Amino acid sequence: MNKAPTIAHDNAPSLTPLVTLLADDMEQVNAQIVARMASDVPLVPELAGHLIAAGGKRLRPLLTLAGARLAGGSPHAIGLATAVEFIHSATLLHDDVIDESKLRRGHDTANALWGNDASVLVGDFLFARAFELMVETDSLSVLGRLSNASARITEGEIKQMTIAGVADTPAADYLDVIRNKTAILFAAAIAAGAEVAGADKAVIEATHDYGLQLGMAFQIMDDAMDYSQSSAAMGKNSGDDFLDQKITLPMILAYGDGDEAERNFWHKTMRDGDFADGDFEKAHSILQRHNAIERSIAEAVTYASAAEATMQRIAEQSKADPALLEALCEAARFAAHRQT
Amino acid sequence: MNKAPTIAHDNAPSLTPLVTLLADDMEQVNAQIVARMASDVPLVPELAGHLIAAGGKRLRPLLTLAGARLAGGSPHAIGLATAVEFIHSATLLHDDVIDESKLRRGHDTANALWGNDASVLVGDFLFARAFELMVETDSLSVLGRLSNASARITEGEIKQMTIAGVADTPAADYLDVIRNKTAILFAAAIAAGAEVAGADKAVIEATHDYGLQLGMAFQIMDDAMDYSQSSAAMGKNSGDDFLDQKITLPMILAYGDGDEAERNFWHKTMRDGDFADGDFEKAHSILQRHNAIERSIAEAVTYASAAEATMQRIAEQSKADPALLEALCEAARFAAHRQT
Repeated sequence: MNKAPTIAHDNAPSLTPLVTLLADDMEQVNAQIVARMASDVPLVPELAGHLIAAGGKRLRPLLTLAGARLAGGSPHAIGLATAVEFIHSATLLHDDVIDESKLRRGHDTANALWGNDASVLVGDFLFARAFELMVETDSLSVLGRLSNASARITEGEIKQMTIAGVADTPAADYLDVIRNKTAILFAAAIAAGAEVAGADKAVIEATHDYGLQLGMAFQIMDDAMDYSQSSAAMGKNSGDDFLDQKITLPMILAYGDGDEAERNFWHKTMRDGDFADGDFEKAHSILQRHNAIERSIAEAVTYASAAEATMQRIAEQSKADPALLEALCEAARFAAHRQT
Repeated sequence: MNKAPTIAHDNAPSLTPLVTLLADDMEQVNAQIVARMASDVPLVPELAGHLIAAGGKRLRPLLTLAGARLAGGSPHAIGLATAVEFIHSATLLHDDVIDESKLRRGHDTANALWGNDASVLVGDFLFARAFELMVETDSLSVLGRLSNASARITEGEIKQMTIAGVADTPAADYLDVIRNKTAILFAAAIAAGAEVAGADKAVIEATHDYGLQLGMAFQIMDDAMDYSQSSAAMGKNSGDDFLDQKITLPMILAYGDGDEAERNFWHKTMRDGDFADGDFEKAHSILQRHNAIERSIAEAVTYASAAEATMQRIAEQSKADPALLEALCEAARFAAHRQT
């Protein structure tokens, strides 16, 4: 009886099982992150250290470690996971410059503290250092996978920039943007881990699919939450996407179902950047009228379920620790879990 | 008799012999540059194409081709030279963002035309694409060499940023900055070419030294010319370094020999950014008083002579085309040649 109030909490999907299983490896990754951001130029570890101390879930290096563990482990997994986190950190530094973000996860961004120039250059440093780390894994195939992912991330970011403010962007273009800018790195992170540990080609491809689907769920959910959560709960400024004229799924769905007055509102705000007091609340109420946030979350859940199904297929043929396979299934559910 | 007026011109060191010898390879590199900047996102080839059409000497990919040719050639030389040019192009795009440059080689910069955000992202794309190209060379050692060079370039740029405006910067710090931000890529470019073609370790190391010395000469000369040439001849804004409060060798030498009034002038301008009409002319006359531009050029000549001596040592033990070896010696002299 007295268990009842906690059931809902216990059932909420969590990263905790994955984090717990990989805690020892992750501690080594964290040590490598600190060791490999060292530089004779003091600003490099200062600024990179600020970003990395701000935390985050470290989901991408966790996926690399998990991919390697699925295939029996590899001495190169730690360095590779560090490289994956450096690539992600580099893109965050450059994103913050582009978005002119002042807050990330509740902390001042590096560009707010050190300026855009330092953020551009330290991002470049982390990216170059990531490739140095990958060379140490002795796998050209892994380098190919992550250099291709890196190119696609930038293509996604550039396409996102070119559709900014275009209120009638088709959903397919949005999905293409987030596949490149977000999901490809999740896919490459886990597949590279599996590959460096010598997994079969079929397993490598399956982990890639899992990562891609999980990444899609993760980004769609993040975009939906930007319209639904308070700034405090997000650790960033709620409504940022709206004010940045960034086109995301909730707005695309509401625009598609909107009447002329609503479409004119989206053009005035998203296209023309003409924002008045109360416009964010108005945007929110239009989204509610069309159930656009819930429908976006449903889309995220569809991707998360596909990721889970992919992992279950891997599990059927895998000799890996069943607890690890289950933790990866739960990580997929977590990606589409409403964080309020 | 009527030959006399052209003798000085004929004797002026030139890149023409190197360019002529490598013209066929370079044509393939230019084709690869166009082919490999292709993207589904139209802004990528538009912006990258603008930068690359603006031209420049393509000295770095020429050095890669020359390095490979020294060691008997390699089918991977074209792709590797393309990668080297992409790394250089990426740094130019990011530099222009940081310097807020509006002109480069007489053309509008990409950031002036498309904005800083696009320049940051397309720079990232070219950098990632460079690594994709390098993976195709099948040489982890080459990847290690160029990823390390890339990290050092950013360290050089960051250190340059941190000494901006510090008028009493020691010359050694300046030399450290340009070694990282410029010379290391010249060194890696030619050494990677030699390496991918299977050169002996001693030859690889010697080509690295040659590239480093040539790169030092090249950057010192470029910095000296910023104080001595007209904007039209440079194809960029003369006096940029002064107005950007960028510390370079002529100013360091003049500061070292300056009296209190002169030092106060450098503090007012370089440190405090307090510029009045006529200050650039005043800076120039102080540099002239201390012979600082000529002394900087002499320093560049010392590095260029060292590069030439290194190449002559390679030539003594090399079976490579003597015309190529002589063209590389002339390229070294060219790096320290006053371009007026």
